[in-house]
Amino acid sequence: MEFYRGKRVLVTGGLGFIGSNLVRRLVKAGASVTVIDATYPDQGANLFNLKGFLDEIVLVVSDIGNLEEISSYLVDQEIIFNLASSTSHIGSMQDPIKDLERNCLSQLRFLRAVRELSPGARIIYTGSRSQYGTPLYQPMDEDHPTRPVDINGIHKCTVEEYHRLFHHLSYIRFTSLRLTNVFGPRHQMLHDGHGFLNWFIRKALAGEDILVFGDGTQERDFLYVEDAVEALLLAGVSSECEGEVYNVASEIPVSVAEAAKAVADMAGVKWKCVPYPQERLSIEPGSVRLSSRKLRETTGWSPHHTFLEGLEKTMEFYRRHGHRYFHPAKGRIILERKGK
Amino acid sequence: MEFYRGKRVLVTGGLGFIGSNLVRRLVKAGASVTVIDATYPDQGANLFNLKGFLDEIVLVVSDIGNLEEISSYLVDQEIIFNLASSTSHIGSMQDPIKDLERNCLSQLRFLRAVRELSPGARIIYTGSRSQYGTPLYQPMDEDHPTRPVDINGIHKCTVEEYHRLFHHLSYIRFTSLRLTNVFGPRHQMLHDGHGFLNWFIRKALAGEDILVFGDGTQERDFLYVEDAVEALLLAGVSSECEGEVYNVASEIPVSVAEAAKAVADMAGVKWKCVPYPQERLSIEPGSVRLSSRKLRETTGWSPHHTFLEGLEKTMEFYRRHGHRYFHPAKGRIILERKGK
Repeated sequence: MEFYRGKRVLVTGGLGFIGSNLVRRLVKAGASVTVIDATYPDQGANLFNLKGFLDEIVLVVSDIGNLEEISSYLVDQEIIFNLASSTSHIGSMQDPIKDLERNCLSQLRFLRAVRELSPGARIIYTGSRSQYGTPLYQPMDEDHPTRPVDINGIHKCTVEEYHRLFHHLSYIRFTSLRLTNVFGPRHQMLHDGHGFLNWFIRKALAGEDILVFGDGTQERDFLYVEDAVEALLLAGVSSECEGEVYNVASEIPVSVAEAAKAVADMAGVKWKCVPYPQERLSIEPGSVRLSSRKLRETTGWSPHHTFLEGLEKTMEFYRRHGHRYFHPAKGRIILERKGK
Repeated sequence: MEFYRGKRVLVTGGLGFIGSNLVRRLVKAGASVTVIDATYPDQGANLFNLKGFLDEIVLVVSDIGNLEEISSYLVDQEIIFNLASSTSHIGSMQDPIKDLERNCLSQLRFLRAVRELSPGARIIYTGSRSQYGTPLYQPMDEDHPTRPVDINGIHKCTVEEYHRLFHHLSYIRFTSLRLTNVFGPRHQMLHDGHGFLNWFIRKALAGEDILVFGDGTQERDFLYVEDAVEALLLAGVSSECEGEVYNVASEIPVSVAEAAKAVADMAGVKWKCVPYPQERLSIEPGSVRLSSRKLRETTGWSPHHTFLEGLEKTMEFYRRHGHRYFHPAKGRIILERKGK
């Protein structure tokens, strides 16, 4: 963590789930952190995510494609964690144009500005398991074909390719971490469009039964957010990671039914299986397991939390702070700045 | 060709190079052809390309993303050859946002409208060799990773993925043909942004020497346009091709120097090597060879023209009609319609 002391670090999407957990670590490590976050209401931004840290950072509330507002904050950044992403699998099918504009268009504008204002910057992009689509073999490594089964997954690939191309042209130095089923504190709790585990937790903490779509046998390798943040920080330090794509996965398969049972047991509620809604069935990839061998071998990374350890911490967080997530404050956040 | 008689066929980009050669074949086969073409000045549209055929088709001059103008022409089409594409490798680096809007945004709008107005339509999309980027092995088959080295190549992949996804969801029935170095009559002759062979021909017919970038040893497998059209027509007929991606390549490697020499000899001019301009060097993939074994084995397709046969025909075409391409009529084409 010494590496980050005094470094100028930009985190896009830094008010969101993974972004805010990352920002907290960076600030503790002594980095000079700027956060850009559009705070779109359907995404994960929550001011409470950075409670206690807001005075330590520069916060810019804007879309990363809005260069008029953000350009001055892009000057001479050393490391950029590019987590800003409009993530909605179902929503991207209902409004693919919005998904295109928020992801591809904004990222393309952003990367061109970065090239100009922070030439040669180190960028860590966060991709997603959804880039692979239905598994052709398992566990999927980074060479698995990318055949997304929703528009958002296609656009995640497109944006990763922008990064790869800009790296190829020596405009930036990029690494992509394809994350899968990250869970933990500071995940939004307003809808189930960003993974089902947080939704299970919300339902359970509200005393409701958990509904599992299908028979619950499909497996996921859930990754606790602190372990995902660790991977991001390691990738930012490692020059060996430059130009490369890595899966980040716990490699511990847990079935959806097991996850539901664990959450239900901790909260003292019941769980049961119900048929898939049609809109979910068409984009459901079945069991998914990723290999993160490449990341382990390159950086020495490995997850430090079992699923149950992570889940305990997560439940505890939402027991204490759930009201900040179940009914967050409404209204547009005012642009907050700190003198640079 | 009997298959196409009486069929309702839509060709996007049908005033362009490959599109117009295709439309001529379709009309001759008795298809009921609608053409949509944006006629962007930097692209390949030329009214002369359909000379003698304009009275036989419905021509809609519009961007395929302009649903207000085109929707009524999308109703109940049976086969759609989706060739509309803004192709500019260098230009896509200079103005990537324009490339995004013209390709991804327009195609996404178009495909959603097709889904609604011609549900289950058979769509043949034309991809490109540029989707592969720098070869990791040769000849490249369809499983070769897609790592484009320009923005246009990235967007060609994105649009192909839109098609694949819509096929996966049973909205359309798609095939992608990834074309490589197609040449022949009706190629635009105003700039060298769509391949160098037409540019060699233009220079040679103007009596100028041909300039080859680099040492000219890099190889391409040039495909004569009539053979490319044959592949499109076969793919449209074959149900086996549905959901699949195919390379279309001659598989006869010709070096750039050999191509320059052949053109120069036919026109009686000289050729010489000059250093690469920097902007070209960065996106130059080196020698490229594709395998079209998959297409051959599925459809029985094979090219019927050698490089020199195709070149002779091409030179002859431009000797006769060059004035229509070197200095085409200016001005926006007026929307022409034929009663349906």
